[in-house]
Amino acid sequence: MAAVQNGSPRKRLDIVVVGGGLVGSLEALYLAKRGHRVRLYEYREDIRKSPQARGRSINLALSIRGRKALRDVGLEDHMVKKHGIPMTGRRIHRTDGSTYVIPYDSRTNQCIYSVGRNYLNSLLLQESERYENVERHFNHKLIEANLRKGTLKFQKTDTNQDVDVNADLIIGADGAFSAVRKAMMKQPLFDYSQTYIEHGYLELCIPADESGGFQMPANYLHIWPRGEFMMIALPNQDCSWTVTLFMPFTNFQNLDTEDKLIEFFEKYFPDSIPLIGKKKLIEDFFIGKPSPLVAVKCRPYHVANKALLIGDAAHAVVPFYGQGMNAGFEDCTLLDQLFQKHKDDLVSILEEFSKTRWQDTFAISDLAMYNYIEMRDLVTRPSYRVRKAMDDIVFWLLPNFWVPLYNSVTFSTMPYSQCVKNRQWQDKVLKITLLFLGAVVLTGVWMRRNNVV
Amino acid sequence: MAAVQNGSPRKRLDIVVVGGGLVGSLEALYLAKRGHRVRLYEYREDIRKSPQARGRSINLALSIRGRKALRDVGLEDHMVKKHGIPMTGRRIHRTDGSTYVIPYDSRTNQCIYSVGRNYLNSLLLQESERYENVERHFNHKLIEANLRKGTLKFQKTDTNQDVDVNADLIIGADGAFSAVRKAMMKQPLFDYSQTYIEHGYLELCIPADESGGFQMPANYLHIWPRGEFMMIALPNQDCSWTVTLFMPFTNFQNLDTEDKLIEFFEKYFPDSIPLIGKKKLIEDFFIGKPSPLVAVKCRPYHVANKALLIGDAAHAVVPFYGQGMNAGFEDCTLLDQLFQKHKDDLVSILEEFSKTRWQDTFAISDLAMYNYIEMRDLVTRPSYRVRKAMDDIVFWLLPNFWVPLYNSVTFSTMPYSQCVKNRQWQDKVLKITLLFLGAVVLTGVWMRRNNVV
Repeated sequence: MAAVQNGSPRKRLDIVVVGGGLVGSLEALYLAKRGHRVRLYEYREDIRKSPQARGRSINLALSIRGRKALRDVGLEDHMVKKHGIPMTGRRIHRTDGSTYVIPYDSRTNQCIYSVGRNYLNSLLLQESERYENVERHFNHKLIEANLRKGTLKFQKTDTNQDVDVNADLIIGADGAFSAVRKAMMKQPLFDYSQTYIEHGYLELCIPADESGGFQMPANYLHIWPRGEFMMIALPNQDCSWTVTLFMPFTNFQNLDTEDKLIEFFEKYFPDSIPLIGKKKLIEDFFIGKPSPLVAVKCRPYHVANKALLIGDAAHAVVPFYGQGMNAGFEDCTLLDQLFQKHKDDLVSILEEFSKTRWQDTFAISDLAMYNYIEMRDLVTRPSYRVRKAMDDIVFWLLPNFWVPLYNSVTFSTMPYSQCVKNRQWQDKVLKITLLFLGAVVLTGVWMRRNNVV
Repeated sequence: MAAVQNGSPRKRLDIVVVGGGLVGSLEALYLAKRGHRVRLYEYREDIRKSPQARGRSINLALSIRGRKALRDVGLEDHMVKKHGIPMTGRRIHRTDGSTYVIPYDSRTNQCIYSVGRNYLNSLLLQESERYENVERHFNHKLIEANLRKGTLKFQKTDTNQDVDVNADLIIGADGAFSAVRKAMMKQPLFDYSQTYIEHGYLELCIPADESGGFQMPANYLHIWPRGEFMMIALPNQDCSWTVTLFMPFTNFQNLDTEDKLIEFFEKYFPDSIPLIGKKKLIEDFFIGKPSPLVAVKCRPYHVANKALLIGDAAHAVVPFYGQGMNAGFEDCTLLDQLFQKHKDDLVSILEEFSKTRWQDTFAISDLAMYNYIEMRDLVTRPSYRVRKAMDDIVFWLLPNFWVPLYNSVTFSTMPYSQCVKNRQWQDKVLKITLLFLGAVVLTGVWMRRNNVV
């Protein structure tokens, strides 16, 4: 049995985690380490036994906030060193097939890691087997919840049997379409928003080459930015690439014949056709259906001392900052710190989590929305590259004083809202500096022309 | 039987309106005039038989958009001339009990009208009795809806009997907590937000004086602006006043004894105590519970050619611009124009309504949020009064060219989003003018000082 953290809790709490995805199974580990009784209920069957489920991304970008959480539960080294594929920058594909690299961190070469969702989820579940205070229940669909009372009713999807459950605390980690959150919406004064973007996504695949190696340089996040739409690719352990095409739904609808599809790819992504394979491209494109992308914001995250939302259930974000999983994992880390700080007193823990977390999750949600425009459009513009160059120079000169936005979000644990404030301050400084320099230059030109010198 | 509009529709549609409040019963009249079959289902009992329901405001401000709709169904004169009480401006109460007036429209003396919710609702329902193509069903609670199929299931609240209903079109006019909208939320790509403000409201009453007259000058909306909170009063037909206290919930909670309440009123609203009566104030304050205020935004408003949201169900707003009912009534007017334009073709009507209406309802929602700050705080500041004076002067000089925001919202049918754009443009003009005047004055002063003249 794995080690329980120093000092047993004041009271062994009976905690139910709804949702056995990435965030739910990580949270179970954190709570298990604190010595509480944890029951994990998952709607789907055990991912360790089932093939890849459709409709969820296959791989993800793990960065510092996610790594910190994995470190806390003893899994960082395994994920990063053994499984993750480092990506050191964005590799931009032009329409002529040529590419160039925008490094994430030219100063200290920090990188993000491409990890498999299923692999990581399985690893977290497997790790929980080492704690005898964790139970796992799969094929359990939440059908009723009384959050104030701490009671839940599940239906077993294999036998249709109902199961009633009581808990000291219910943690809803059941994703963007959370059933726990749906129950929470009945609470008065619960703010909620769901916003769909007009773009959908569809996954394609670049297989390994004949010798089983990567067909493209492996240590990059590849991007084909095309203004209104874009394609990206993340490397997999088996040397294949998961390719994702993001595009307005109307554009997807227009590509309704094989000819139109190939014409479209030949125009915008010609270098990808031989990599994916024309036949496979047509097959995967027309089998798949573009999935919608939703951003969810809500608050507060808790009901009394009985229920709490974390992860996508609390703050689903669009995927363009690569922070969805990282933000969810950070929820677990922060929650663990609050358990420590308030000595397992649920009233204080849940209240403080609700009061302090939303500013940061709202901030990363807005950043992710904005980053979509950056990734598919701005990244190709000179103004973007000038700004990035200025950022990099000052960062290189004054690394503690000036951290660019992407770096503070991805390679630091600075609160997301603080990252945004930093950027606003940096924008002001650069603006004033440029105005000042502009004024100096103009004065100089004027003085020369008028022979004042 | 009342007259049906010129030209029978291409097809007599079978339309169900869910919600028999102000907007639902007005919509029923519009549709009845077009010759369609209308069935109106209302959760509560017939308002014409029941006493005032708690939890909804007693009186409302009727302005031009609401009047236009009442005119269309032949009820404007009755409501405005016989029942409505004109309010020509805001009458601001200082803490020393003195008052001053800010007229709504000093140029042409347009005014808004205080009308009773129950009276207006009853009148609309009564009017619908004149159409034999309208059925009214009270005590029907919507419990299930399949909007794509156009099927609804109601439960009769008196007999618990289930009633199944089919329709060509379902119109959800069932208010801020709409059950039709709840069904619509299951549609993919449905954007939705609900935002509670941290202030609640509580209604009090200033009765008529001993001779049955008004205790305060009648033709005003009275406001006691106090920064973080405020109180307002609207006149009723029986010469009483409905007084509404808006305040953060935490402030309400702090007033937990009679002494604290009276001390609070003596400090902030001393002139209101003899008007309300100390005993009645204590009674009403502690019987009542502050109600929350929510703003709801969503889109699209329709499902295929089968279902549509209007009124608060589509866009509940906070009450601070006095436009909630007016915006809902305007929905009905615009919808009627679309029925006319598209000759009762539901696909085109619903699509165009969804596509064109949200910009305006989002705009009035944001304006109403902003106006709360204006009413309780800004209105007392010199900067506000200077700006208002400037607005009024230019409006007086150039009435067609320069319409102040409040006037365009309240006394014109300009789309709400256009009102906001106008204001942004006016702000820019005033800013540039002031900068220019400032530069002229500074130059003049400098020239005089340096004897350049």
